[in-house]
Amino acid sequence: METITAEQMHDVAVGGAVMGTGGGGDPYIGKLMAMQSIRKNAPVALIDVDELNDDDLVACAAMMGAPTVMLEKLPRGDEIVTAYTKLGEFMGQPITAVMCAECGGLNSTTPFIVAAEMGLPLVDGDGMGRAYPELQMVSFTMHGISATPMVMSDDKGNSVLLDTVDNKWTERLARSATVEMGGSALIALYSMNGATAKQSLIRGTISLCKKIGETLRKARLDNRNPVEALRTLLGAFELFEAKVTDVERRTEGGFARGTATLKGIDRYSAHTFEIDFQNEFLIARRDAEAIVSTPDLITLLDIDTGEPVTTESLRFGLRVVGLGIPSDPKWRTSEGLKLVGPQYFGYDIEFTPIEERPL
Amino acid sequence: METITAEQMHDVAVGGAVMGTGGGGDPYIGKLMAMQSIRKNAPVALIDVDELNDDDLVACAAMMGAPTVMLEKLPRGDEIVTAYTKLGEFMGQPITAVMCAECGGLNSTTPFIVAAEMGLPLVDGDGMGRAYPELQMVSFTMHGISATPMVMSDDKGNSVLLDTVDNKWTERLARSATVEMGGSALIALYSMNGATAKQSLIRGTISLCKKIGETLRKARLDNRNPVEALRTLLGAFELFEAKVTDVERRTEGGFARGTATLKGIDRYSAHTFEIDFQNEFLIARRDAEAIVSTPDLITLLDIDTGEPVTTESLRFGLRVVGLGIPSDPKWRTSEGLKLVGPQYFGYDIEFTPIEERPL
Repeated sequence: METITAEQMHDVAVGGAVMGTGGGGDPYIGKLMAMQSIRKNAPVALIDVDELNDDDLVACAAMMGAPTVMLEKLPRGDEIVTAYTKLGEFMGQPITAVMCAECGGLNSTTPFIVAAEMGLPLVDGDGMGRAYPELQMVSFTMHGISATPMVMSDDKGNSVLLDTVDNKWTERLARSATVEMGGSALIALYSMNGATAKQSLIRGTISLCKKIGETLRKARLDNRNPVEALRTLLGAFELFEAKVTDVERRTEGGFARGTATLKGIDRYSAHTFEIDFQNEFLIARRDAEAIVSTPDLITLLDIDTGEPVTTESLRFGLRVVGLGIPSDPKWRTSEGLKLVGPQYFGYDIEFTPIEERPL
Repeated sequence: METITAEQMHDVAVGGAVMGTGGGGDPYIGKLMAMQSIRKNAPVALIDVDELNDDDLVACAAMMGAPTVMLEKLPRGDEIVTAYTKLGEFMGQPITAVMCAECGGLNSTTPFIVAAEMGLPLVDGDGMGRAYPELQMVSFTMHGISATPMVMSDDKGNSVLLDTVDNKWTERLARSATVEMGGSALIALYSMNGATAKQSLIRGTISLCKKIGETLRKARLDNRNPVEALRTLLGAFELFEAKVTDVERRTEGGFARGTATLKGIDRYSAHTFEIDFQNEFLIARRDAEAIVSTPDLITLLDIDTGEPVTTESLRFGLRVVGLGIPSDPKWRTSEGLKLVGPQYFGYDIEFTPIEERPL
């Protein structure tokens, strides 16, 4: 059985930032909290979903809110354990393993806090295979699994338990509670039994995050090109090398929204690029033409260090490489696209897989 | 033991509208729903709070939201029973009697629906002795009683269970959930044991509502002046006779807010009056000078029929009598004024009891 130590959280968090596609919250805070919890308790056992018994009860732990807010409003630290404990009490059955709803950004590390504090194993996988802005956007929804009962806890000590008719209503009610709680909240949700988890989980994504972090770190140590090493690992496509010329951003309805404009450099110097985001990067355009869109992943890396760049850290003059990464095949089905395709976000285009686009 | 029949709900609802001080929601819808429930089941037993055993569990049932919204978005009918049942399940102890949080407006009748549907007695009294716009504004708060656990249910089938650090946080989180639920929700809250209810309840207000309705009805039957009969019953003060000349209103943050302007008639013809409201009438001014303010009650009655006038039915040309009614003494203490005094609502005036004002 693999265990994840405090030191290894560095790699997991870097991988989480890559899979966060610019959003999901800066994994830095989550990483520090997870490291502290692991040091105080013990390394976290990372188990394969097939190791669960069919009647085991598992549930996801996550942070909800606008990444811009999370940077300034740190969690107190025990809210996530409170939310998780309350969910367990409500279910009236002990939760035997923690799951990850979103392997991108902050939420790649949040479940480690709960696992370490409660001495539970963490299941290797998640519900998104990346980060998405809304909580119904998980493979679990496609499998008819309810997000509720869901518990939300804030830094003041308030809790909200939701029981909704569908996962989109969970998102609506949880989002407005998050805004009222100050823009961020810790949540426990998507409880299910082991049998259901085996069917619905996007597998192996926590190990993948760790592998991404290792790959970037080792490439730098060996003086290899970290971006190239990552591109190979993920089967990613290079979108551009460019310099950020403008970022328009606003915090709206509990989300960080905006558009970044970039000017191509070197062999891309004839082109201008634009990327829209709602917490995560949604669509990238070259000279006003879409070149990659959700559900495929858009990730920006610092051109020199290969470090992933979040929407919050986008600033004038930053030189980045843009990568497009094929999403998990679940998201490319008609059911998947209904949940997270470009049209859901208001873009009047059909989804075209990145590998079929002329780049 | 007194019981309230479907027919008697007419009187209760009229009294509720008077105690609603222009807000609390139009009791008409609540009355129809209560009458239907009583006819389908049985008359509702109205008990004195002293009839409760000290260890009985009681809880309040109410509707939350902007009255303007409630007029257009009718409840499905079973949400309030759902909320009440879920609260009982969560408490893990059967609830033995229903209580009223707010005897003004719609919520003078809402608890009858739960009582009739669940075959429970209704306690004669409430937490406000009138209507107020926010849910922490109850005598229970002054007695340190938590509004939570509180259950909210909507017409779609969604439920939210709140567990907050204080009653003002309950209001904040419940208000935003109400807005998200479409502007209104059915709620179950302020559970407490019989001993606590005996200390904290504002007593006898449900019978008072019924008595108000009877008084107005009988005065009209006997060709006596209904306004005068009511003034005598309540120890009220006449503020003006006037004609509505302007109403500015907006639905904002889940509340119906605005200001009505009136021109005095007959012996008041030299004066102009203004009344501000946030769901309920908060303050009345004569020629820009405050003449009565919360927590004292401001009630408008149709000059001809003596029927209470809600903020939603205020319109140009309507001729009304304004009454000021002394509030329950609990509200005139420094603790009471902190919760519902004029300064809480942003008015820079000290509260002066209506009976000490020059009218």
